[in-house]
Amino acid sequence: MLLNSLGKYNKDFGFKTQDGLLIVFSGPSGVGKGTIVKELVKIYPEELVLSISATTRSPRVGEIDGKDYFFKTREEFDNLIKNNMLLEYASFNGETYGTPREYVEKNVQNNKNIFLEIEVQGALQIKKNWKGGSIFIFVLPPSFEVLEQRLRGRNTENEEALNNRLAIAHKEFEFISEYDYIIVNDTISCSVDFVKSIIMTEYFKVNRILV
Amino acid sequence: MLLNSLGKYNKDFGFKTQDGLLIVFSGPSGVGKGTIVKELVKIYPEELVLSISATTRSPRVGEIDGKDYFFKTREEFDNLIKNNMLLEYASFNGETYGTPREYVEKNVQNNKNIFLEIEVQGALQIKKNWKGGSIFIFVLPPSFEVLEQRLRGRNTENEEALNNRLAIAHKEFEFISEYDYIIVNDTISCSVDFVKSIIMTEYFKVNRILV
Repeated sequence: MLLNSLGKYNKDFGFKTQDGLLIVFSGPSGVGKGTIVKELVKIYPEELVLSISATTRSPRVGEIDGKDYFFKTREEFDNLIKNNMLLEYASFNGETYGTPREYVEKNVQNNKNIFLEIEVQGALQIKKNWKGGSIFIFVLPPSFEVLEQRLRGRNTENEEALNNRLAIAHKEFEFISEYDYIIVNDTISCSVDFVKSIIMTEYFKVNRILV
Repeated sequence: MLLNSLGKYNKDFGFKTQDGLLIVFSGPSGVGKGTIVKELVKIYPEELVLSISATTRSPRVGEIDGKDYFFKTREEFDNLIKNNMLLEYASFNGETYGTPREYVEKNVQNNKNIFLEIEVQGALQIKKNWKGGSIFIFVLPPSFEVLEQRLRGRNTENEEALNNRLAIAHKEFEFISEYDYIIVNDTISCSVDFVKSIIMTEYFKVNRILV
């Protein structure tokens, strides 16, 4: 089934074909955002794509430029910023990461919906800089206790790093009113269905169809 | 799966439980509205109900008061109107039909979503008179040609009645901008999924959850 189910009826009723949507996906680390998004892209490869970040950091073994990241020198990256070619950017551990506007634009103009997994501060920058169609979704765990269990289950971090992640999660929760939708990720299959529903519904909106 | 999937997480995040929704369903006669709605009520009997109209006309054999209609005398009906107890009403062939406000209120307060199948003029009255949560959905045929074929397939009307219905369909089409969503009823199973998506999505809206 196509998410954009009205497409084939454009001719009969004079509806306009719309660009795809930028789907901003936030939520605490460990909540399962990545799994939901990857599953959706697998189910709807013709309609959904993942955004690709630009970064100043060096490629790791096996990483491919233009697939995993757009790898940039510091100078190239500064030029992207200067020319307003990033929808958002931020620095972590001395390296800078950002979302190239051009890649998002190219995809939505091609009727693809493009997923962007990003923390709250980045999402707020996107909200300011992106004037096209968008859906902002915040993913919550069933409870903060479940989130802690999931993070512990990963077994990849010490206690301090884990507590830090939980503190960030509580902090980010204060910004959910900036989003359009909230979903609770209890099981992946339900969450996939929820996000599918949210995207489909966007295509049924009268003020999206009758423009 | 529950349509209102956030219900069980209310305690963890302090989300409020919301009333159910009034779902107004319009579209040309012959488009398949009734079939879609009946199918949905069958799938989600705990969460979806059909509205019941009040009418001045006499019960036909087998019709049950409070199930098929609320049967009223002319005087009782006039009192409903006078006391603002109808969300809309209209007369056809000398009999009057209307939507009792109380039955809708009782259901949404009970967390049920209530379907109301109604023509455009009635929907516009509802829009003015109902201040609770609502979703206005207009159902289109894949094309007006398909609609004509479906009406002819019923074989229940003469040419004049059929042309009259098609003229009304074209006229009603002019009002679709008053609705929230448009779906095209190509196959019933897809339409059922579309409407399910629209209802679920309403429950994920931040401004519905954070009130």
